[in-house]
Amino acid sequence: MAAVTYKLIKQCKQSGARLGKLITPHGEIDTPVFMPVGTQASVKGISPQELSEAGAGIILSNTYHLFLRPGHELVREAGGLHRFMNWNGSILTDSGGFQVFSLSDLRKITEEGVSFRSHIDGAKLFLSPEKVMEIENALGADIIMAFDECTPYPATYEYTKRSLERTTRWAERCLKAHQDTERQSLFGIVQGGTYADLRKASARDIVSLDFPGYAIGGLSVGEATNTMYEMLEETVPELPDNKARYLMGVGRPDNLVEGVMRGIDMFDCVLPSRIGRNGSAMTSRGRVIVRDAKYAKDFTPIDPECDCFACRHHTKAYVRHLLKAGEMYGLRLMTIHNIHYLVKLMEGIRAAIAEDRFMDFREEFYAKIGENRC
Amino acid sequence: MAAVTYKLIKQCKQSGARLGKLITPHGEIDTPVFMPVGTQASVKGISPQELSEAGAGIILSNTYHLFLRPGHELVREAGGLHRFMNWNGSILTDSGGFQVFSLSDLRKITEEGVSFRSHIDGAKLFLSPEKVMEIENALGADIIMAFDECTPYPATYEYTKRSLERTTRWAERCLKAHQDTERQSLFGIVQGGTYADLRKASARDIVSLDFPGYAIGGLSVGEATNTMYEMLEETVPELPDNKARYLMGVGRPDNLVEGVMRGIDMFDCVLPSRIGRNGSAMTSRGRVIVRDAKYAKDFTPIDPECDCFACRHHTKAYVRHLLKAGEMYGLRLMTIHNIHYLVKLMEGIRAAIAEDRFMDFREEFYAKIGENRC
Repeated sequence: MAAVTYKLIKQCKQSGARLGKLITPHGEIDTPVFMPVGTQASVKGISPQELSEAGAGIILSNTYHLFLRPGHELVREAGGLHRFMNWNGSILTDSGGFQVFSLSDLRKITEEGVSFRSHIDGAKLFLSPEKVMEIENALGADIIMAFDECTPYPATYEYTKRSLERTTRWAERCLKAHQDTERQSLFGIVQGGTYADLRKASARDIVSLDFPGYAIGGLSVGEATNTMYEMLEETVPELPDNKARYLMGVGRPDNLVEGVMRGIDMFDCVLPSRIGRNGSAMTSRGRVIVRDAKYAKDFTPIDPECDCFACRHHTKAYVRHLLKAGEMYGLRLMTIHNIHYLVKLMEGIRAAIAEDRFMDFREEFYAKIGENRC
Repeated sequence: MAAVTYKLIKQCKQSGARLGKLITPHGEIDTPVFMPVGTQASVKGISPQELSEAGAGIILSNTYHLFLRPGHELVREAGGLHRFMNWNGSILTDSGGFQVFSLSDLRKITEEGVSFRSHIDGAKLFLSPEKVMEIENALGADIIMAFDECTPYPATYEYTKRSLERTTRWAERCLKAHQDTERQSLFGIVQGGTYADLRKASARDIVSLDFPGYAIGGLSVGEATNTMYEMLEETVPELPDNKARYLMGVGRPDNLVEGVMRGIDMFDCVLPSRIGRNGSAMTSRGRVIVRDAKYAKDFTPIDPECDCFACRHHTKAYVRHLLKAGEMYGLRLMTIHNIHYLVKLMEGIRAAIAEDRFMDFREEFYAKIGENRC
């Protein structure tokens, strides 16, 4: 029995949107779902209790960061990531591919794997499909991701093709190296850059390996938004209906709505915490820059339609003061708010699909945020 | 009717320790009490709910900081500090005296007041007893402090004498300027440096002005611990039994025990949050440096005898990882733990006084922490 299974509950009649359930060893997750990111085994500033309160049921944590610090063997000794960070919900770990290519220094890719230097202390390290499986097995997340090369943007057709073919070969090695499929499910990753035929080819190759779920990687890395949507339209039809589809690293509210419309079930992004720490809130009326001087004496919540902890207890004026004064509590409130916003957005999307009004929901969403996109 | 009154409940037979109650417009506080510090209208990283959960009933906030940012008029418009930060417990604001002398640049003291430059933007500012009362009235704390000069250490006898005499004249001006005594109670501050006769003289002068409570300022500023205790022994007997006694800026666990033994009812200090952020925990067995490598694989709580949020939910290994990785949540957990420790220490002290075993409590306290002082 696979650790994680996907159950399709309802297919939207007017779009690719679908309602489903992800059944994991740590609970059932209604999809489409947004997964907050706890890079270093912590969603910045937030407790596991607050994540639950915000409605999050699954979070993502980063293999690259945990491999570097505190080390996967320590997390294994702690009883795995769930116990280490005391999060009883589901966890997905990425494969480190994206971070090796975006954060580390002096990386060198060969067929065997990638050698690179740690961004923390410059230590020389090596990751291969087998090593990544060892690390992800030690971390013990419910869903683990295959080691891939996140093809940069822009990249030539030739490079993108060679890269995705290697990613496919690495995916086979990951499948071979990952043994305990009853405890953790390994998802494959489709690459292919911004080339429609390469996306299709990658999807077919990866699907032929028969993973319990599929991610679309290498998007939202600098290409135009419409290009991302186009790539989804090329890729999703190649993925089977009975498996979850995960669009990696995407978290802008409008991107979530558009992703769902094109058949995506899972999303993750650091955006809510990152822009939150910079003073930008995601709200029902679009982006609100809480740091703006115009909110200095605004004694209303960040979003009057929101019932998150920050909006129930504090005003824009107070949160703005905390941000201006460099107070940690301000960062915490903004992060709670933004994560809550995305989790509730997905809840609204699911309700709309269930009630056959997803396309109306989408229209209202755009009408309310106006030009004010995050 | 004064806003804040003190009720002496029990005098320890073997020491100066006493049990009392501080009755404020925002609740009754059992004394001796430790007040966590929320410098900029926030106890670093902690929510008002968490402060309550840790057992805190009264917090201190800093007039100097709030005057600079966000400004007292903004806080007044918000409905006062309680509403601004959404803390329904009691608040004490200091007078800015200590910060003007320790943080600001280019200060110049005259009989009228102190001119100085903001440590934030270099703006030229001026504080006088009247201005400080205006600010503290706008902030609206339950207890407000008179504007004093926190005499530096070391200081000559002559300087200390001139300084305390000016502090007394400023105290008179504060009394005159503070009108709404039913909403806020103004406490006087005894100075006098490390000179026993000056401490006595200052105490007599300040007491003769008849404040509803008295603070002892200018200690724990660099002098030897024994000198501080000596100064308390000289000063406390000059203070009336029916008013609260507050030792400013003191928060080391052993200093609290010794202060209580010498008749102090109230304490405040940034120590629990400051050393917490640096990775040091206050525990029943003395200081534990959670950042130490020896705790890397310690999967037990920071203090097995503690029932704070951090100790109920997380291990030393995890908190250490968060601190090493620079994660905000680690700072938050350490701060919660240390504040909880001091609040519970005072709870233990009160129980001991009530049960006529304060001196035994003190002995056990030292036996348990050993040489391991914070």
